[in-house]
Amino acid sequence: MPSVAVLGASGYAGAIAAMLVHRHPHFELAHATARSEAGQRLDDLHPRTRVPLELEPWDPDVQGDVDAALVCWPHRVAAPAVAALRARGVRVVDLSADFRLRDRGIYEDWYGPHGAPELFGQAVYGLPELHREDIRGADLVANPGCYPTAALLALAPLARAGLIGDAIIDAKSGVSGAGREPTATTHYISADENVVPYKVDRHRHTPEIEQELAGQGAPVTITFTPHLLPLAQGELVSCYVTPSRETEEGEVLALFDDAYATEYWVELRLGPPGVLDVRDTNYCRLSVHEDPRTGRVLVFAAIDNLWKGAASQAVQNLNLMFGLDEREGLR
Amino acid sequence: MPSVAVLGASGYAGAIAAMLVHRHPHFELAHATARSEAGQRLDDLHPRTRVPLELEPWDPDVQGDVDAALVCWPHRVAAPAVAALRARGVRVVDLSADFRLRDRGIYEDWYGPHGAPELFGQAVYGLPELHREDIRGADLVANPGCYPTAALLALAPLARAGLIGDAIIDAKSGVSGAGREPTATTHYISADENVVPYKVDRHRHTPEIEQELAGQGAPVTITFTPHLLPLAQGELVSCYVTPSRETEEGEVLALFDDAYATEYWVELRLGPPGVLDVRDTNYCRLSVHEDPRTGRVLVFAAIDNLWKGAASQAVQNLNLMFGLDEREGLR
Amino acid sequence: MPSVAVLGASGYAGAIAAMLVHRHPHFELAHATARSEAGQRLDDLHPRTRVPLELEPWDPDVQGDVDAALVCWPHRVAAPAVAALRARGVRVVDLSADFRLRDRGIYEDWYGPHGAPELFGQAVYGLPELHREDIRGADLVANPGCYPTAALLALAPLARAGLIGDAIIDAKSGVSGAGREPTATTHYISADENVVPYKVDRHRHTPEIEQELAGQGAPVTITFTPHLLPLAQGELVSCYVTPSRETEEGEVLALFDDAYATEYWVELRLGPPGVLDVRDTNYCRLSVHEDPRTGRVLVFAAIDNLWKGAASQAVQNLNLMFGLDEREGLR
Amino acid sequence: MPSVAVLGASGYAGAIAAMLVHRHPHFELAHATARSEAGQRLDDLHPRTRVPLELEPWDPDVQGDVDAALVCWPHRVAAPAVAALRARGVRVVDLSADFRLRDRGIYEDWYGPHGAPELFGQAVYGLPELHREDIRGADLVANPGCYPTAALLALAPLARAGLIGDAIIDAKSGVSGAGREPTATTHYISADENVVPYKVDRHRHTPEIEQELAGQGAPVTITFTPHLLPLAQGELVSCYVTPSRETEEGEVLALFDDAYATEYWVELRLGPPGVLDVRDTNYCRLSVHEDPRTGRVLVFAAIDNLWKGAASQAVQNLNLMFGLDEREGLR
Repeated sequence: MPSVAVLGASGYAGAIAAMLVHRHPHFELAHATARSEAGQRLDDLHPRTRVPLELEPWDPDVQGDVDAALVCWPHRVAAPAVAALRARGVRVVDLSADFRLRDRGIYEDWYGPHGAPELFGQAVYGLPELHREDIRGADLVANPGCYPTAALLALAPLARAGLIGDAIIDAKSGVSGAGREPTATTHYISADENVVPYKVDRHRHTPEIEQELAGQGAPVTITFTPHLLPLAQGELVSCYVTPSRETEEGEVLALFDDAYATEYWVELRLGPPGVLDVRDTNYCRLSVHEDPRTGRVLVFAAIDNLWKGAASQAVQNLNLMFGLDEREGLR
Repeated sequence: MPSVAVLGASGYAGAIAAMLVHRHPHFELAHATARSEAGQRLDDLHPRTRVPLELEPWDPDVQGDVDAALVCWPHRVAAPAVAALRARGVRVVDLSADFRLRDRGIYEDWYGPHGAPELFGQAVYGLPELHREDIRGADLVANPGCYPTAALLALAPLARAGLIGDAIIDAKSGVSGAGREPTATTHYISADENVVPYKVDRHRHTPEIEQELAGQGAPVTITFTPHLLPLAQGELVSCYVTPSRETEEGEVLALFDDAYATEYWVELRLGPPGVLDVRDTNYCRLSVHEDPRTGRVLVFAAIDNLWKGAASQAVQNLNLMFGLDEREGLR
Repeated sequence: MPSVAVLGASGYAGAIAAMLVHRHPHFELAHATARSEAGQRLDDLHPRTRVPLELEPWDPDVQGDVDAALVCWPHRVAAPAVAALRARGVRVVDLSADFRLRDRGIYEDWYGPHGAPELFGQAVYGLPELHREDIRGADLVANPGCYPTAALLALAPLARAGLIGDAIIDAKSGVSGAGREPTATTHYISADENVVPYKVDRHRHTPEIEQELAGQGAPVTITFTPHLLPLAQGELVSCYVTPSRETEEGEVLALFDDAYATEYWVELRLGPPGVLDVRDTNYCRLSVHEDPRTGRVLVFAAIDNLWKGAASQAVQNLNLMFGLDEREGLR
Repeated sequence: MPSVAVLGASGYAGAIAAMLVHRHPHFELAHATARSEAGQRLDDLHPRTRVPLELEPWDPDVQGDVDAALVCWPHRVAAPAVAALRARGVRVVDLSADFRLRDRGIYEDWYGPHGAPELFGQAVYGLPELHREDIRGADLVANPGCYPTAALLALAPLARAGLIGDAIIDAKSGVSGAGREPTATTHYISADENVVPYKVDRHRHTPEIEQELAGQGAPVTITFTPHLLPLAQGELVSCYVTPSRETEEGEVLALFDDAYATEYWVELRLGPPGVLDVRDTNYCRLSVHEDPRTGRVLVFAAIDNLWKGAASQAVQNLNLMFGLDEREGLR
């Protein structure tokens, strides 16, 4: 049974990743790391995981002795750890942004100098519904950001059909997306009974979405605006697409049917999705609507930002990398 | 001191309207009506109002004996009551949709047959920041819908400058917007920890917004999509405008400065507004952003849907109609 | 593989019960019933269950053809259905209050006439941590109420030791405890940002708790007061016990250690539990505290009212009745 | 018009205190202080206050030049500032715990060394409903803690009648009670959908409640247990009293009627109060219930912890100190 280390298991996504590996029938959770919380048990820090494992400090000589690792660290600090793991032959799913982009200039513009330039551009972008075959053979997978996951699943069928003239993405996220650090933003009194747009001028997920849309055939400049909502987990993207040409009756819906009819983790529905429908799951729930008054196509996609937007998608990728059914340990 | 009746004081907006009139230094709350709750005291039904008045059944011969009335009934049933009040010379602010539209065909298409056709089109649209002078002389004011209030304050400066090429409005509202009736939608378990788009294909506020934008000089077909959020009161509209032409540096912000510098109830700020900033107030809080990557203009406007979006705006209108400072009773 | 029917799968507890049976490795979900929602699929009504089964109207000749049934109906209407199932030899876990009490007069005082008097008093009280052996052999198990589950797990070790002089139980519950019917109480605007005591003078769980405490050796009259909290699922009981005699240092904690050291579903901890720690699980999390200033013993117990307080405990009982590991399908 | 300084206006209670003084018809808000936020405008930091005043660093030579001050600092640091203000003849309402207790040993046991021992024991305890006459003449008023405010209003009528045998207080508070500092406890993800008992073994409000109950004639040792709830503002105390003797029919309710019939800010009701009923107000809402089964008396009291539990009660005290109607500026 392949052994797995989870780096950064004290964060929200890392804790869920550790839980999913711990419960997984075909992986063994060998290590879980944390910095300031090293020495604590994960189930004391995050009771809901019920993982009775002591958190360890990061040491490549300790955690490097595994078959695979999920790296749940912030961008910039993730890259050197990924490099150290890869140097030991460990197969890695990296949940940070460090290996998602393929243009080094864009990376440095948004994130600063890269921490493992020799590996830059070497990863497969880990959105299984778009890149399943590449993931199967990969040793390094860059797990997508939460917003890109939802946005790309919403827009890929239109992108591939060359139908995206332009696209506006109005995104809504629960507070866990802001991380576990206590800040003015994550204080209960700031978030409760409130909704606020944030990073209006510049959000790091914008170039990631644009890169992948271009890869699907739609080289567009998007408007992407996230909002913070008073709920714990969940993310909804509301996508407003002006088609590049007139479409025929039923054409748009057929694109989505074709794309997702056999995708286990994508639920295409007639009515708009709520984030509660997918809470604590790896599902993405979608609906598509054509507005006859304006000709626009509206696509709504809901995911759990900590699951399909992070931890469970990482396990889905791990399943593929190890030749398993990609639903293993996630149902 | 002018006497005022509030019809429909058992609903959320009606209760606040009654409270505001009751506390008002220059109006007297003479009557408050309700149907099934008639006989109860308003402060038993809605303790936060602290209005120790017994709710009465609607009787034009009783409540018609006042100087002014705020009609807080649903569309269709409001119109005949408004007509009965007007026939007795009562000055009316109607909070329903019955007198907002000026095209009878559009009204009937969205709402059905009108309940007082002889008065159709006779009301002034009660958004004081746009129609202040007309409101001063009016005997019948149609109080705007909550979404139109926020959307029009967000877009009017651009509309008047002929700058709106097209506009997408992604709107977010708290649960009180769905009314006091217990339904599957308003059940705590449905709304809590959730966010869902609703009335995606057709929302009644769309023609109202388009009519008023046209009146400001922007005859555009908009995309308007509301979402239900897990909070009690508050509404945010996120407006994505493609300008009809290139603008000069600073031009857009100057339009908003000019429009709102002297408007007491509109707060223009650099950072995006949160709905909590305006909770339980008559303020609309706005921010404007230009996206150099796409050329789009983003405008965010936050109001309290029950206050500036309904009850307190009605009192603001009443102040104007009776020659008072429009801030009276609202600060 | 034993076949199971879930009656009343449209309610919150029923839907979870159906989900747990559907996912269970050793039971087959053969039927799920509903009244007004018959004909809908369960995963349309309750998406989070992901149970693709059509809800059927109740018909003893249809659903009676199974090995076991979970009856998730309200008290009074449950009893006749239970009787019909038992008459066909179906083994039943009844989640209503109809078979929990053993004194018919008390039942009728609190609930009215009983719907299947011939079966009254025939059920085993289904709290596995107290009555495991009896449940194993039972054909009819009365699943405990949510408050009694938490209160009895909190108080049983003290009761058995003869230590309860008197007991006050201050209970807090999320809104799902009030059921799926939209009412003034379950309206988002009533529950949000609020906390209210309810049924202060008389709550039906009081006699149930007293009966079972007496069965454990503590024939006391308790004060039990529930409060409604602004959260979806979760229940906390705060128990204030005046001991019947002075205790020795460590005696009380030892009672709890002895009672629960080997109980998989009871987590005894040093610090007080939060309901979030046990959300969506069959766990009960407990802490015990002695107050040297007053001599009182405080016990806090947290459960998920829909899981350990209803649906998952029913499956735990079902596991026992069919000779399975009681953790099957619940981890 | 007397000038007032608010020290510590960046905190939740301090900001509301500044807002209430700013709006007050008979006081002038001359200064508002903050430490790290000095230089910011209060309405930028706390938009809902709409107080356009720049926060100043604390300087006794600057803020000491006023007629009165509300000191909204934590215990220990408040005392020296209070002493500096009193030395300049400023009349002070102190919202910290520094001057509430009258036994120096108890203070030091719970809080540590006192910062202005010469003033210890010199303050009037500022619960107007119990000590109105003393407050009128006072130069230094110790504003009660939030829990003691609710608990004492709930229990004083029973205490004065010698009816309290013993008392258990189960208290529930919103998150604002934990202060504005971002911590693991105040993080949205910790508090949302949760309820947790805290400071179970020892809470600083316990000796304060006992001191004041003794002052009302009930020298009892209480059990007091607070719980953190997922809401912003609001506090409910559920008091379980074992009477010291049997009472006559109607006797208990008469005690409360007598105590509160003419108290403007105390609302005695038949049904239990919800914290939402008193949100953003100076009201305390109460209900009293006798349990015939156990003989216990249950009293529930709801307040807004930041208003009647802190800021608005401070202004109520200030009104009394300056000979004004105690409702001024609070209705």
